[in-house]
Amino acid sequence: MSREMMRQGGRSARIQREVHAATRALLEEMDRGSVTVPMIAERAGVTPSTIYRRWGDLSQLLADVAVERLRPISDPDDTGSTTGDIEAFVLQYAEEMSSPVGRALLRDVIANGEDISCPSKCCRYTSDHLETISARAVTRGEPPLDVPELVDRLIAPICYHILFADRDVSPDYCRTLLDAVDLASPVAARAAG
Amino acid sequence: MSREMMRQGGRSARIQREVHAATRALLEEMDRGSVTVPMIAERAGVTPSTIYRRWGDLSQLLADVAVERLRPISDPDDTGSTTGDIEAFVLQYAEEMSSPVGRALLRDVIANGEDISCPSKCCRYTSDHLETISARAVTRGEPPLDVPELVDRLIAPICYHILFADRDVSPDYCRTLLDAVDLASPVAARAAG
Repeated sequence: MSREMMRQGGRSARIQREVHAATRALLEEMDRGSVTVPMIAERAGVTPSTIYRRWGDLSQLLADVAVERLRPISDPDDTGSTTGDIEAFVLQYAEEMSSPVGRALLRDVIANGEDISCPSKCCRYTSDHLETISARAVTRGEPPLDVPELVDRLIAPICYHILFADRDVSPDYCRTLLDAVDLASPVAARAAG
Repeated sequence: MSREMMRQGGRSARIQREVHAATRALLEEMDRGSVTVPMIAERAGVTPSTIYRRWGDLSQLLADVAVERLRPISDPDDTGSTTGDIEAFVLQYAEEMSSPVGRALLRDVIANGEDISCPSKCCRYTSDHLETISARAVTRGEPPLDVPELVDRLIAPICYHILFADRDVSPDYCRTLLDAVDLASPVAARAAG
């Protein structure tokens, strides 16, 4: 019985891998509006109903693939200082997410209807990175960072302008946001207090 | 000739009205994943190719309908004070946008691929409201507001949490954002300086 379940797990993981790979390949080859579940199924060597059963519909599959691609592959750069770590992370976030690929991934994550697991996973990646930077600060004897405040002050405006396309999130703009957050006192103080 | 164009304009406006109405009606009757262009065309009494020619694809039509529904029908409430106007506007924005209908509209606006006209229209409605509040402040002899800063500090975090569904945008949360923006000095000062 437990062996059966392990096999099931293995097959299930393989299906996920194949379907994700097929989706990514098709998204590179054609306009995303033209990609359909039957196409993905054919490419992945599964039946369309396997996909519908597992993902519900195309938008949820696209969101799942997008979240997987947004999953960080390493910790944020360690620059030796908390200010440096945050600046490096924020500049990289803005650059990656404002690229055509980044925008499309963000949109796919958000567009998937009522299922909120993908969007909340996606923003947890961001908070986790900031928590890592905060933990490093503590190791250096500094107070921890107020991560929710940093999300609101740095990540949210960048994300807003990328999604609504009303202004460039240039490095200069990001530095204005960083300068307005006094990392040395209020944020840290609020977290420590 | 000019008469021809006026007629054309009239027909064009009528088609837009009918197609929007058909889309809204279908979105109320069924799951948005089930709505198709041919269904909308049949309900609106036009051919599908009329819709494709004018809107490109379903996601652009949905975005167009969503932007239309997000278009404000009146100026923000005049509470007699700038702080009061901003608070009223922000609380109302958070409440409306975090409702199931508001979330769906935001997602439709954002999800429409490479065409950025709908998302940027949508966030211009928000800036315009804040500009109206700012103009009222000036009429009262106060300095103008720094609208881009207010968008970053108040609107962007609310929008972020609605789209990524990682936290509630309760009135208490909104008030925390409002309290952190010192309307009496730095924002105004920056705009004035």
